[in-house]
This record gives sequence, structure tokens and C-alpha cells, in this order.
Amino acid sequence: MRKYKKEDELSYSLGTELTLELLLQHPQDVIRVYVHSKQKDNPIYNRIKVLCDKYQKEIVQNDKIFNILSDKDNCYIIGLFKKYVSEIDRNANHLVLVNPSNMGNLGTIIRTSLGFGINNLVLIRPAVDIYDPKCIRASMGAFFELNFEYFDSFEQYLSSVSKREIFPFMLDGAKQLEEIEIPERYSLVFGNEATGLPSDFHRYGQSVFIKHLHTIDSLNLTNAVSIGLYQFTLRRI
Amino acid sequence: MRKYKKEDELSYSLGTELTLELLLQHPQDVIRVYVHSKQKDNPIYNRIKVLCDKYQKEIVQNDKIFNILSDKDNCYIIGLFKKYVSEIDRNANHLVLVNPSNMGNLGTIIRTSLGFGINNLVLIRPAVDIYDPKCIRASMGAFFELNFEYFDSFEQYLSSVSKREIFPFMLDGAKQLEEIEIPERYSLVFGNEATGLPSDFHRYGQSVFIKHLHTIDSLNLTNAVSIGLYQFTLRRI
Repeated sequence: MRKYKKEDELSYSLGTELTLELLLQHPQDVIRVYVHSKQKDNPIYNRIKVLCDKYQKEIVQNDKIFNILSDKDNCYIIGLFKKYVSEIDRNANHLVLVNPSNMGNLGTIIRTSLGFGINNLVLIRPAVDIYDPKCIRASMGAFFELNFEYFDSFEQYLSSVSKREIFPFMLDGAKQLEEIEIPERYSLVFGNEATGLPSDFHRYGQSVFIKHLHTIDSLNLTNAVSIGLYQFTLRRI
Repeated sequence: MRKYKKEDELSYSLGTELTLELLLQHPQDVIRVYVHSKQKDNPIYNRIKVLCDKYQKEIVQNDKIFNILSDKDNCYIIGLFKKYVSEIDRNANHLVLVNPSNMGNLGTIIRTSLGFGINNLVLIRPAVDIYDPKCIRASMGAFFELNFEYFDSFEQYLSSVSKREIFPFMLDGAKQLEEIEIPERYSLVFGNEATGLPSDFHRYGQSVFIKHLHTIDSLNLTNAVSIGLYQFTLRRI
């Protein structure tokens, strides 16, 4: 056992709640569950034991593994699982992240997106590894309920999904967020944390900006995404 | 020189842009500026040199200090400064964070808050140290334009500021965010990252919730704050 690497076929859930979510959503992909000797009996651990029994998954006590895989002191359960293939629903509304680079941000965005009813996430390469345990942990379990898919380019993504309106969020977007009329079917598109979207994204649809004062250069990516999701799903969830 | 501790009288800005912001906003509090031998001449560094000259602040080349104070490879300028006393404008709109515990979150919140024109931040103890270099860095310079003040309790804060409407953001808030009529003078109040506000905050004013699906337990704090700020300042900035 060693620390996670992108090319690994397995990943893991660090923590009790997260491992319960994994067992509830993707039992068939679980390899086994590790438990630390300090883990006490509690309702969540009991649910994990019931599920492991039901799906015939082994619970292995092994304290060393926690030193290798986790950098948090309070993590006493780890779920090892096979990275499954996920696909977006091609007819649903999508959140599209172009070249996201921060794993913690990605996890937080997944959680907020699910909260606002957008559970189809598109990642345009180069992009951070969504299976990294740090991303999964930051999503607080939302990851396991998400449909996601990587594409090599935005064009490739566009040509593979149903007709929809495209809203690229850009600092020099043409229309202010709250003036947008929300259509039936849409994709919200956000760029990289540091660089935003390239300027040619204006041509893909109705570019949008979130008005803020120029005392700051830009909003933080996860905050911008959360405001966009909030406004688009207002009175619809 | 050693790593920052809460009880220190000095703190520092890690990075070129951040140190420029420090020199622009608080020149009187700057002790000196450290520069790494790898720092190249560029427009921002030139502005730093001009400002250091103007305010008679020394620029010291010392590579070792960067190993001690910074964990990022690309930080080549550090500004050492005296922690100044800041005070909120008692008649302005406020953002109030009750028991915030994460430094990165706090920095991100400062940046977003400034972007939406709320530049008075209240922290109710126990609360994270706003002068921690990690918080300052996460604010991307917004920190140096912020008025902030710590209070020992919410009651103490209330009794020291002008009359205003209080909006505690709570999972079981009584009114949905977008139904709130925005008054002239207000304070937006948010709880700790993990626990939210204690239930007795209902009595301080009109409690608010941000509607989301119950596929997630709650929104991430910085995302909730950014949505609250966005909605309250809509068409007002």
C-alpha cells in the first residue's frame, strides 16, 4: 500500500461518513474497508458493518495503513474502491470546468453543485484528477452521487451532448448574471482558477459576468461557481 | 526569524503582489522587505522598489528566510510588517463570522466580501487569527483594504454598533434568502464551518436559509457567504 497516484486503478475514501456514502452509492466497486484500532462503535460504523456484511466486503484492522494514506489524525475508517467509469446524462443541465487545477476546489464545487441539483459535471483536459482522495474528501460524499466525464476539448464535449444554451462565465462577459433568462437546457462553463476562460469562449454562447467592485481582480472560482449555480437554479429546486 | 505564531507582533506578506498591496495600503507598518536572489526585475518589483525608497524601507536579500517562512517555491518577495490595530466602521453594513476556524476560508471570504462592497468584518471569538500569513495570502491582498475587529461575544458586538437589521444564516432559517427585503443597514451573520450558528441566534433577527437539495447536508461556508453577499448587494454595487 502506498499513497494515491493518478495512474492507480484504485482510490479510497478517507473517513467514516465518506466510506458510508461509498458503500451506499457504489457497493459493487468496494474492494475492502480498513478500520483503525481507535475506531469506536457508533451508529455510522454500525451501518458500515451491516453494509459490508450485506455485500460481502472484508473489514480489515490495520493501523499502519492510516499513517500512509491519511494526513488527518481523526480518520479511522478508509474505504478502498475501484475507480468506476462515470458518464454524464447528455440531456441534463451541466456544469463544465475548463482546466480546473485544484483538488480541494473541485471537491467543494461538486458538493455545492449537487446541492443546487446539477449532478452532471464535465471536465475539459488538462484537468485535475477527480479521483484524488483529497477531492473526494472535500466533496464530503457528494462525489459518489455525481455523474462526471472528461473530454479532451470543449468542441468534443459540445458535439457529444444534446442542444443547449452555453453560458461561459468570464470577467468580460457580455451580460450580467441576474439579467440572464434561464432556458430549459443549459451548460454553465467556468475556466481555470488562475487564468479563467480563454477569450474565444465568447463565441460559444451568451457570456456572463458576476458584477463585483474592482477592489478585487476576480472572485475565487468556487465562489463564482456557487453564485452562478444559485442564480440559475433559483425557484427551480 | 521563525515561522509565524499567533502571539507575534509582526506578520508577513508572502509574494510579490501581496507585498505591493501591503506597501500601498499600510506603508507606515512595514518593517522591511525581503527579496530572494531568484527575483527578477519586473514592473511589480519595480513598484515595490519605488515605494520602499519613498517610505525609507530597507530591501534585504536573504534566501534562507524564504525556506523558513514560505512553503511555496514561487515566493520571492516577503514583506515584514507590524500588526496594526483595525476598527470596523460602526455605521456601515457588516459581515459577522461567529467562531470561524479555517484560515484559508477566512482569506477567501475577505476577498469576496470586498468584491461585493462589504469591507467591515466582525469576528466573534473563539476565532482564527486573521493575521496568519496563510489567511493574508488567501485574501490575495484584499486583507489590506479591510476593516476588521474581534469581539468576545455577539452581544458585545451588538451593543457597540449602530442600529441595524441582523440576518443570521442558519440551516433552519425562517425565511428563504431571495425573499428577504434588503434594508438600509444590516449585518450578515454566519457560524462556524462545521457547526453553523447556535440555535439561539434565531432571536437576534430575521434568520435566513439558502435553499438547497437535501442530497447535501449544508453548503460550504465560503460558498454560503458568497451567495449571501451576492444576493444582498445585487443592484447595489
